[in-house]
Parts: sequence; C-alpha cells; structure tokens
Amino acid sequence: MKPPLRIGLAGLGTVGIGTYKILTEHADLLSERCGRPLNVTAVSARDKAKDRGVDLRDVRWAESVHALARDPEVDVIAEMIGGADGDAFDLVRDALDNDKHVVTANKALIATHGIDLARRAEAKGLTLAFEAAVAGGIPIIKSLREGLGANKVSRIVGILNGTSNYILTTMEATRRSFEDVLAEAQQLGYAEADPTFDIDGTDAAHKLSILASIAFGSEVAFDKVRCEGIQKISPVDFQYAAEFGYRIKLLAIAEEGIGGILQSVHPTFVPAETPMADVDGVYNAVVVEGDAVGRTVYEGRGAGEGPTASAVVADVIDVARGLYQPVFQTPVGKLRPFQQANFDERRGKFYIRLAVMDRPGVIAQISRLLADENVSLESIIQKGTDANGAVSVVLMTHETSEKSIARALSGIEALDDVMQPSCMIRVMEF
Amino acid sequence: MKPPLRIGLAGLGTVGIGTYKILTEHADLLSERCGRPLNVTAVSARDKAKDRGVDLRDVRWAESVHALARDPEVDVIAEMIGGADGDAFDLVRDALDNDKHVVTANKALIATHGIDLARRAEAKGLTLAFEAAVAGGIPIIKSLREGLGANKVSRIVGILNGTSNYILTTMEATRRSFEDVLAEAQQLGYAEADPTFDIDGTDAAHKLSILASIAFGSEVAFDKVRCEGIQKISPVDFQYAAEFGYRIKLLAIAEEGIGGILQSVHPTFVPAETPMADVDGVYNAVVVEGDAVGRTVYEGRGAGEGPTASAVVADVIDVARGLYQPVFQTPVGKLRPFQQANFDERRGKFYIRLAVMDRPGVIAQISRLLADENVSLESIIQKGTDANGAVSVVLMTHETSEKSIARALSGIEALDDVMQPSCMIRVMEF
Repeated sequence: MKPPLRIGLAGLGTVGIGTYKILTEHADLLSERCGRPLNVTAVSARDKAKDRGVDLRDVRWAESVHALARDPEVDVIAEMIGGADGDAFDLVRDALDNDKHVVTANKALIATHGIDLARRAEAKGLTLAFEAAVAGGIPIIKSLREGLGANKVSRIVGILNGTSNYILTTMEATRRSFEDVLAEAQQLGYAEADPTFDIDGTDAAHKLSILASIAFGSEVAFDKVRCEGIQKISPVDFQYAAEFGYRIKLLAIAEEGIGGILQSVHPTFVPAETPMADVDGVYNAVVVEGDAVGRTVYEGRGAGEGPTASAVVADVIDVARGLYQPVFQTPVGKLRPFQQANFDERRGKFYIRLAVMDRPGVIAQISRLLADENVSLESIIQKGTDANGAVSVVLMTHETSEKSIARALSGIEALDDVMQPSCMIRVMEF
Repeated sequence: MKPPLRIGLAGLGTVGIGTYKILTEHADLLSERCGRPLNVTAVSARDKAKDRGVDLRDVRWAESVHALARDPEVDVIAEMIGGADGDAFDLVRDALDNDKHVVTANKALIATHGIDLARRAEAKGLTLAFEAAVAGGIPIIKSLREGLGANKVSRIVGILNGTSNYILTTMEATRRSFEDVLAEAQQLGYAEADPTFDIDGTDAAHKLSILASIAFGSEVAFDKVRCEGIQKISPVDFQYAAEFGYRIKLLAIAEEGIGGILQSVHPTFVPAETPMADVDGVYNAVVVEGDAVGRTVYEGRGAGEGPTASAVVADVIDVARGLYQPVFQTPVGKLRPFQQANFDERRGKFYIRLAVMDRPGVIAQISRLLADENVSLESIIQKGTDANGAVSVVLMTHETSEKSIARALSGIEALDDVMQPSCMIRVMEF
C-alpha cells in the first residue's frame, strides 16, 4: 500500500466539517478505494475554540493559511474558506508554490484567478481541482473534462444557483412576492444574510464561466458573462408562463454565438415538458450538448454540507490515486483568449409584460413600435384593470434578435401610457 | 509532447466506425486535450472489402484478433466486436496478457468475465475501461467510480435499455400492442432482428451488474440479477398506470436489501412527476443515491453511433492522459463476493391486473386470498366486460412483501373464475 495522503483542511464551516466527516467516517472505504489512507493532518480556521461537533484534538492547527501552505506534512490542501481574494487566494497560490496539490470549493476564486492558478499548478504537475465549485455534488466538472472529452461542445445550460431556484419554485407554488419569499428563504437558511450574489446571478455566472472554459477551451471570462437576476420577476409572470406552457428558471447558458461564445445568466421561460423545467427547489441541473454524445443531463443537490463535501472528497480521491491532468481539460498554455460573441445578434423568442393605461390606441402604438423593428408576435394577452386603471399587456414574440427587442422595448417604455417597470424574459426552446 | 497513443480498433460496425470518425475528425482537438496525438494504427474486422464510408487505407489490417492483440505498434485496444465470449473475450484477454490497455463497449463481456479480466489488468497496471458498455454516452461509470467515490451508495436505479424504453414509450402513446410496436421498432432499426436480450431484460441486467459492482464493492454477479422483461405489458396497463399517477418503465435496480444486495430488472410503475418517468424513447437515465451526495440523476442517449463512440473515446483519452486506476473502483482483490439479499423479503406496493369471469363472489374470493397473506389494498378497480364475459379487475396494494404477493397471486390464479395470464407490476416510490 502506498503511504497515506496527507490532507490539510482550510476553513471549517459547513463544507469543511462535512469534508472532515466523510474523510473520517468513511476512512476504511476510502482507503480501500484509493489503495492508501486519506489522513487529515492539519487544519486551519479562524476560531480554534468553537465547538464544531467533531473531535479535532488529533489534528494539528495551523496558525495561519500561510503556515498551512508551508506545512511539510501536508500533500494536498482542501480550500473551503471562500471568496475570490484574501486568505483563500493567498493559501491556494502559496500551496501550489510550495508543491502541494489543491482542491477547492471556491467558485469565485476559480472564476477570478483560475487561469493564473492553473499556470502555477501545471508548471509543476500539481493538481488544481474544483468539482465542488460548480453544482455541488454533481460530478459535472469531471463529466465535462473527462467523460465528454471526445466531444466538441456546442452548448451548456445550467440551473446553477440553488437559492434562486428555491425562490422561483416557491414563488410559483405560492404566488407570493419575491421579497416575501426571499425573507422566508433567509429564515430557513436557504439564502444568506446578504443574498446579492445568489439573486443577481453573480454566483451562477462564476460557475458558468468555469464550465465554459472547460467546454470551449478558452480562458475563464467571468467578466464577460451577461448577467440578470431574478429580482424583477412577479408572481403573475408564473401564471402567464404556465398559460404559454413554460416554467421560469434562472438559467446559465454558454453557447456558440456569432463571432465567439455567448455567456449569459438570466431568468428564462423553459418549456414545461423538458427536464430542466422540473428541476425544483435547491436542486441544480446541467445540460451539455456535444457533437457526438448529443444532449446529456446531470441533476442533483447544488449545495449543502453532504453534496459539496462529496465533491471535495472526490477531488481528493483523484489526487490519492495519482490522476493528474490539465486543470481546464485543455492545457492552460493552449487555452484560447475568450472570444465574446455579439449578444445583440442573439436570436430567440421573448416574453414581455407591460403595465399600460387602458386608453384607446395604446396597443396600436405598441404594435407599431414592434413592427418597426420587425418583431412579429406569436400572441398578445390583455387582462384585468387594477385600481389605477392600468391593464397588463403580455406579449410573446416570434424569434427575433436582442437588438430588435431592446430597441422596440425602449420605444415602448417611452410611451406616456406605458408604466414602469416592464418585464422582459427570454424564452428558451430545447 | 508525449509520443502518440497507438490505438487498435477491433470491430468496425456502427460503434467502431463512430469511434474512428471521432478520432480522425477531432484529431487536433483530442491531441490538444491529451497532450499527445491519438492515432489509429491498426484495425481488425471480419470483412476487409466492405465499404464503411471511411478511408482506412492508411491503417494496418490485422488478420485476426490474435494478431491485433500481439501487434507491437498498438498501445491500447478498443474492442467493439460484442458478445460475452468468442473473439471479443479472446482479444481482450490476449491484449492484456500482451501488456496492452483495453477499452471496450461490451457489456456482456464485462458482466460475464469482468472479474477475471480485471485481475489480469490490475496485476500489470493496465487499464480496462468500459464506459461505453453502460448507458451509451452518459459518463455513468466515471461518475460512480470517481465522481461519487466519497459516497457509500445505497441504491442505483436505471433505465438502461433504449429498445425496451422505446417500445414502452410508443405503446403508451399509441396504445398499440407489444408485438405490433416491437415489429415497428425492428423496421426502424431501434430493435434487432433477435430482440430477446433487449426485451427480456438481459441487456439491462448485464449493465446493472456492472454498475452494482462499482457501487457496492462486490464482484460482478450478472447471474444474480432477478430479471423480468416487458413482454407481459398490455396497452391497458398504461391506462391504469396513468389513472394511479404512474408511468411504466423497465427499471434496473440495485440496492441494499436484507442480507446483501438486491439486483433486479423489471417493468415498474414510476410516479409520473419524478425525473425517471419522463425519460422517453431511446434515452437512458441513471439515479444514484449516495449517503453524502443524496440523489443524483444522469440522462442521455443510451445507444447509437455517436453516444457510444463518445464513451469509447473518453476511455481512450483517460489512457492517453495516463489516468490509471482500479477497474471497478475497489481493487479487484478487495472486491467482496456478491452477497445476495433475500428477494422474498423485499417490500413495496404492487399493481395486479386480473381477467376474471363476472360471477358473484369472485371479488370476495380474491380479497380473502389477499387478506390471508396480510396484503391490504389501496384501491380496487373493476371495469367493463369483454366478449367472453370477463372483466378486468385491477388491484393496487399497500406495501407488502414479495413473498406475500407471490403466495396470494398463486392462490388467485388457481381460482376457476380467474383467467390466465394475470399481470403483476411492481410500484416504485422515489
């Protein structure tokens, strides 16, 4: 049997403790599967005195991430601190520079510094792995990087943020407002005290940019993700979606576009009878379309102690087995600079909900502005009158371009009889 | 760059040609991803003269599988001949004995001789990989063997045979008979001339026994799969299933039971709102339940040139990258002998459809026989009378054991007023 793999855990929050539990509770199973013991030899966390419900007396406490990164009795660091910079970045960089493999659950770090860190890792033949950074326990990184390695990928579509998916699912089921459901999700622990990154799409964008790099062989380009959150969705939008045969999901999409790759995160009408439409609550799912394999779908829990720790330990197992390979599938030196497709030229159907004053001629004005941009309508629904004399006008367009919709909408919103805010949601056909 | 990986292809049917196409059409992409070219240097197939639509002039033809297994200019053999024995077995055994890695799409071979072959491979540190043997292009072997390696798996449920799933889906949609839909599937090329292994569950059982070995760390035990096919399903069963809120799928299930592992393949009532119920046509899907990760689902095309070749090439890529590991996750010497659970003690709900003569007292007799075995009913439906004066009686039981159902059913079928055949379908709750 090979000597034990010596693991240093950094960060002992939910995921860190979950990882420690798997490594200790499944010690025999993992040792058998890997042909060597997986031993936690050192940990680093902010508060040494805190009771975390596990016995850490036999484990050495590193006084800082810098000490952990230099610990001569650690072969691999599992970084579960979080955050794109600060301690997490210092630790991962220093660990690689000190010849240690690194496993991380940190999507912000990889989305921001992944290329720099991959260069350091590959220059030394070290592993830098981050299965836990995307879609929790679903082995989507491994599937893309290895299992689908024979394919030219044309599109990835993901439900990558459990918090926003939980909010959308609950809004749909209860027809309560976004604010109301968010507050409840915070009480239940499904949303953080500062939920900004979850609801504005940033978290999904971090994850998408990582998947896109692996799939398309280009450098991670988190700053090139076009990102819209779920704040603008109203309960009534779920009702209209259902009438049209759709459900609303926050989708993260990376696909070949005109002149490059399109990366976008936005609420989306998803056809009700497709697998993605049925992904509810805190579940995540990813669709990968490859030229040989066709469409494959991966689904599971996107967050939480067990699923995320499952992914961290999977990466540790790879290290223990000596399965070394390039970080983003394509060796980092061969990754192409990210080529951004022209978003204006993206084509699709659009759902638009407007609040308009119920006066003669307003529908004619709206229709004219759409026609001027060559946007034709699949259907138009006008319903009810509220206390202010406003009616809801809901439009479903035929396929058109982002540019045309943006121009038409800007004209429509400038009309005296159209009130703010309007709501535009993209429609995805699978 | 490392020297090219030299590949010998055995079998140039649909999958073999698909593999050759990917390796040649994506040569640059694969070379970049693997850090070395993947070159097909030799092939072996029955008919050299046959036009297969690809240019094989530059490739050496091995005159036999024995010659291919000994070819000094081949590093890895991709076996796509098929069949548990004969040329496929000879080739794989000889190739390993001649220090060549082996990649295979052959489920019958691995289900039958996998342990023997794994011993030969692991003794020499050679790869024996078979991603293509189960669920086509879905990377389910890799996900189980690596991505979920941190988990103790409690259950695997798969739709693993595209032909039977196509037949069930079409029967449900059209309410045509099994024989009628099978004949059409044969015309369309979705079923083979001899469809026995697809419709009687053998093919799914081959695949299930492979997944179970990886998941549960026990030796492959294809002969311990309890197997029922789809021949007994009538169009009317889909109607009753829908009334109860289910769809009918041929499920392959491996799970912890009393005293060991239960492996079974049988038509199953699947709750309509679960992901497995929506897997239609030639698609495959696998649900894996692990203690840390929870439930994960994998879906994609289960057969065909592109998907199967995608999986073959994925395994070749692993070889090219030097990713060596034990064949069934647990090193073959540590795999436990298969412990079979007691199927009689399995518990669940059951759907039973009987054709009975519409005479006073028959329902009372049936109810009595069920009560004698402590089987209680969730519902009972009696419908219509056919030309012979028979009525359909449909029973949905509460949870009970296989033993009780088998005894009750044997008594019921012996009643004078109950006609043959009756139909019993197990109900799965997720």
